[in-house]
Amino acid sequence: MVSSTTLAVAKRKQDERERLIKQMEDELGCASEHPEDQEYTHTKPEQIVYNLKAKKQGWTIRSACAAHRKTNCLTEVVFEDALRRAREMDKDFAATGTAEGDFWGLPSSFKDTYNILGVDSSLGCSPHCFDPTDKGDAEATLVKLFRKAGGIPFCKTNVPQTLLAFECRNPIFLTTTNPHSSDRTCGGSSGGEAALIALHGTPLGWGSDIGGSLRIPAHYSGVCGLKPVRGRWPVMGQRNSVKGFDGIKGMVGPMGRTVDDLIFASKSMLSLAHSTADIALKGEVLLPLPWKEVDIPKKLKVGYWTQDNLIKTSPACVRAVEESVRKLREAGHEVVEFHPPNIAEALKVFAGLTSSDGYKTLLGNIGSDPMESSMRLVTLGSKLPSLLHSVLGWVVDNLLGDRLFASIFATSRPKSVQEFWEFTARREVYANAFRKLVWEEHKFDMLLCPVQAVPALEHGATKFLSPLSVSTILFNVVDSTVGVIPVTRVDEALDSHSEGFLNDSEGSWILEKRVYGKGGAYDAEKMHGLPVGVQIVGREWQEEKVLEMMKTLEGLIGYQA
Amino acid sequence: MVSSTTLAVAKRKQDERERLIKQMEDELGCASEHPEDQEYTHTKPEQIVYNLKAKKQGWTIRSACAAHRKTNCLTEVVFEDALRRAREMDKDFAATGTAEGDFWGLPSSFKDTYNILGVDSSLGCSPHCFDPTDKGDAEATLVKLFRKAGGIPFCKTNVPQTLLAFECRNPIFLTTTNPHSSDRTCGGSSGGEAALIALHGTPLGWGSDIGGSLRIPAHYSGVCGLKPVRGRWPVMGQRNSVKGFDGIKGMVGPMGRTVDDLIFASKSMLSLAHSTADIALKGEVLLPLPWKEVDIPKKLKVGYWTQDNLIKTSPACVRAVEESVRKLREAGHEVVEFHPPNIAEALKVFAGLTSSDGYKTLLGNIGSDPMESSMRLVTLGSKLPSLLHSVLGWVVDNLLGDRLFASIFATSRPKSVQEFWEFTARREVYANAFRKLVWEEHKFDMLLCPVQAVPALEHGATKFLSPLSVSTILFNVVDSTVGVIPVTRVDEALDSHSEGFLNDSEGSWILEKRVYGKGGAYDAEKMHGLPVGVQIVGREWQEEKVLEMMKTLEGLIGYQA
Repeated sequence: MVSSTTLAVAKRKQDERERLIKQMEDELGCASEHPEDQEYTHTKPEQIVYNLKAKKQGWTIRSACAAHRKTNCLTEVVFEDALRRAREMDKDFAATGTAEGDFWGLPSSFKDTYNILGVDSSLGCSPHCFDPTDKGDAEATLVKLFRKAGGIPFCKTNVPQTLLAFECRNPIFLTTTNPHSSDRTCGGSSGGEAALIALHGTPLGWGSDIGGSLRIPAHYSGVCGLKPVRGRWPVMGQRNSVKGFDGIKGMVGPMGRTVDDLIFASKSMLSLAHSTADIALKGEVLLPLPWKEVDIPKKLKVGYWTQDNLIKTSPACVRAVEESVRKLREAGHEVVEFHPPNIAEALKVFAGLTSSDGYKTLLGNIGSDPMESSMRLVTLGSKLPSLLHSVLGWVVDNLLGDRLFASIFATSRPKSVQEFWEFTARREVYANAFRKLVWEEHKFDMLLCPVQAVPALEHGATKFLSPLSVSTILFNVVDSTVGVIPVTRVDEALDSHSEGFLNDSEGSWILEKRVYGKGGAYDAEKMHGLPVGVQIVGREWQEEKVLEMMKTLEGLIGYQA
Repeated sequence: MVSSTTLAVAKRKQDERERLIKQMEDELGCASEHPEDQEYTHTKPEQIVYNLKAKKQGWTIRSACAAHRKTNCLTEVVFEDALRRAREMDKDFAATGTAEGDFWGLPSSFKDTYNILGVDSSLGCSPHCFDPTDKGDAEATLVKLFRKAGGIPFCKTNVPQTLLAFECRNPIFLTTTNPHSSDRTCGGSSGGEAALIALHGTPLGWGSDIGGSLRIPAHYSGVCGLKPVRGRWPVMGQRNSVKGFDGIKGMVGPMGRTVDDLIFASKSMLSLAHSTADIALKGEVLLPLPWKEVDIPKKLKVGYWTQDNLIKTSPACVRAVEESVRKLREAGHEVVEFHPPNIAEALKVFAGLTSSDGYKTLLGNIGSDPMESSMRLVTLGSKLPSLLHSVLGWVVDNLLGDRLFASIFATSRPKSVQEFWEFTARREVYANAFRKLVWEEHKFDMLLCPVQAVPALEHGATKFLSPLSVSTILFNVVDSTVGVIPVTRVDEALDSHSEGFLNDSEGSWILEKRVYGKGGAYDAEKMHGLPVGVQIVGREWQEEKVLEMMKTLEGLIGYQA
């Protein structure tokens, strides 16, 4: 039973959203009636700014409305504000002849976590609804910087309930669907962004990532994204679902259709953040590292892997990596297979840390809202009484014979502060060993690996499959700069798996059966045409280098959105 | 009763130390018989390196032995290794004519926390004795860098049991005394360093600081020290007493007799750490910010205060700040009084975070060793049963009428992980508000304030006075770069306090009575001649600027050690 509070709040929020979208459709007409829109909705953001400064048409909100109609990707709609601001700017421009700022006139969407003046940051939780950001000062610093450079925020996008899931569904705004298949999720938590971007509903978007939240939607929906590590980008003014948790540091980052879009966004933002003295950082500490052009080595040293050894990677996602390897080798780069140490440990550390308070802080967000099924497995272990937790763990290990799954399940439980600190120390041991091996010993410029074992799942399928996020979580634990780009599409002719597919696997059979067994989550035929991405990984604070490496691979691959 | 294990371990450690020191005294003679030593023991480290490269006499270990005889400041003695290394280097130099490295031939002492090959890092705890660092790779990165640049570690120095105290005493190496008064403590936890440096027993030293551990000994013993914030300096290879705790980030830093010594040490180390590719960082992440010369503003904007409003600052420590203010004003700087927001909150956050596990991790270090009295108050609150804790808090608040002390006491208790995260969030709120106010709104270049309310205390006096560390803890909570320099000495004629001294105080009367009541800790007559320092505070990662500001004040003050 969904509580009447939730239902009432959801109705009000949905009605309000519908009213604002409808109003815009009435005013501007529908995208389907304006095929000419494509000319600029398919334009790069940098070009849009250029066009606007040349007094040409820049963008239309019609495209966002259409994307929303298709995928239900919007949460907060500030179209009116955006149009008003655009008109003001045009007027100023006409009067003064000056149009300054890297983002001058550019509309952009933001994940629901970003505080924007006048609207909620509800994360799909009724207790956070009708509690709008009420002072300009309280806006996310990144939004303030975007405005400062002439940018115009025009909508916010949907997320999973409390963010800790990779299906984009909550009881307030409901489900956002995959832009390529309505039966499937667009991924999460920055799922609304990915859907909107993929459908050309926004020139540029902004997401965030604490366990893959920006990368999984990019992979599922076929767009590009950059997950930096904490330091250069302001994160203040994000609504966080686990206040005070810094066992893993959540990050913000840009999302777009091409690597150029990310470069444009990153270059502008990292220059701005360090030069704009009149934007109050409100005490937030930023590394004094403004954007700096880099030359990457002509011959990159790349370490790649296709398997995380927890859940066997699907043929489609293996192929995405292998095709990238082939193209990189053909272009003269040194690409070697690399076996990363015990990736499951990263998941254990992550689950161990995030479950330490029994998810009390996280679940404190949802009030009387029903819990989404995608959060069930995540929070299950830590909600069981301690004895039952042990018994279940024992059953999984001994009776079901899945030692790996049992060992992950064992870490997901409420802990004492002393144990929490032990997990913090364990994180450092793992992360240091990984960084030492990869950057100091192998001296790789770049790592290349799957974003996830599978492409976009059907709605509801993540319920028992949250450990699939191990491949993205790894780089939150290790703290690396990671980009995702789409490199191919599922091809039923190439990517089917045979009956014996799991025979040689040493992963968790419980999880693998759900993915590759009869009626399992992976099905190349049903998935035909879905985008498949890869992760391109560099060191901390090497946004410039990682972006250039992404661009290199993007150029070699020639993926067509 | 001290356990027989503790006694046996302590005896073995002390005997071994005595043997090594005696051996050196027999070999080299005593400092008292070599007045000529002063010529180089009073030389700056940079000059020592210069002299050595010019094949002149550089340093003698006699001075360290003498300092130890006076204050009991050493823990691990590696004189033989150091001499062997020095002879090897001389030989190489004679053979090759090259002597490279900023620290070429320079001996240096290190706080007991720094892992050094072949010796213990026991922190004065018997369970950590006879467990020497056994691989070169396991040495503290800072020690490895120091060696890489030609430096020679020659001893380690004493600390309080488990580090979390500012009296330098433990059951293994016993008490280190103040270099200026044997009845008093040299401060802690980097106390052995401060005593050794003050007595010219080492050219340069290395301490660490998580709540004032480098700054309080500098203040008590009359030396200089720099506490950076986490980022530019490698901290790997320190023995930490609270593994996995990163609620407050402990830091390493240089200590010396003059600001020039700190500049020399910092400049060399921060250049090295970012240029020496063949020193394995073992996965530790360092900010890509090598040393960079800076010009500080001709007219500094300085905010100063003399009171922390928890424990009234003694006349001597007020005078230290006020004399500094006067000199800075005379030199044309803009110096304004500033009232920092609610400093007691920083102490509450610190106590709240560190006590979260009931000090179980911390006390896990000491095994069957007796707990030092200096740790009693710190750990008291968190060891009481919850009901008694509440009752005691109520008594302090309501019957004794000390709301401030009661509110601090209330935070010091074991917590759930959820509460620990709440305190983490509270830290961020306080730190951000402080940084915003000080750096963004007031735009101060520098803050100036007391290191502590009082100069060096008598042994045992910190037992109930641990909250005195509020003035240093503030900058661990806020994460600032802080230097300490001595600026004056206690003068009984100027610094006595009258009977009505506390009349106008709004601090904690329970604490203030212990400091200023009859037979209290502060007594200008007994303290006559003790050094008094000040804190010079800058932003994160501004080592260069903070050091230059310290040098500016040092030059104006003309303190004579």
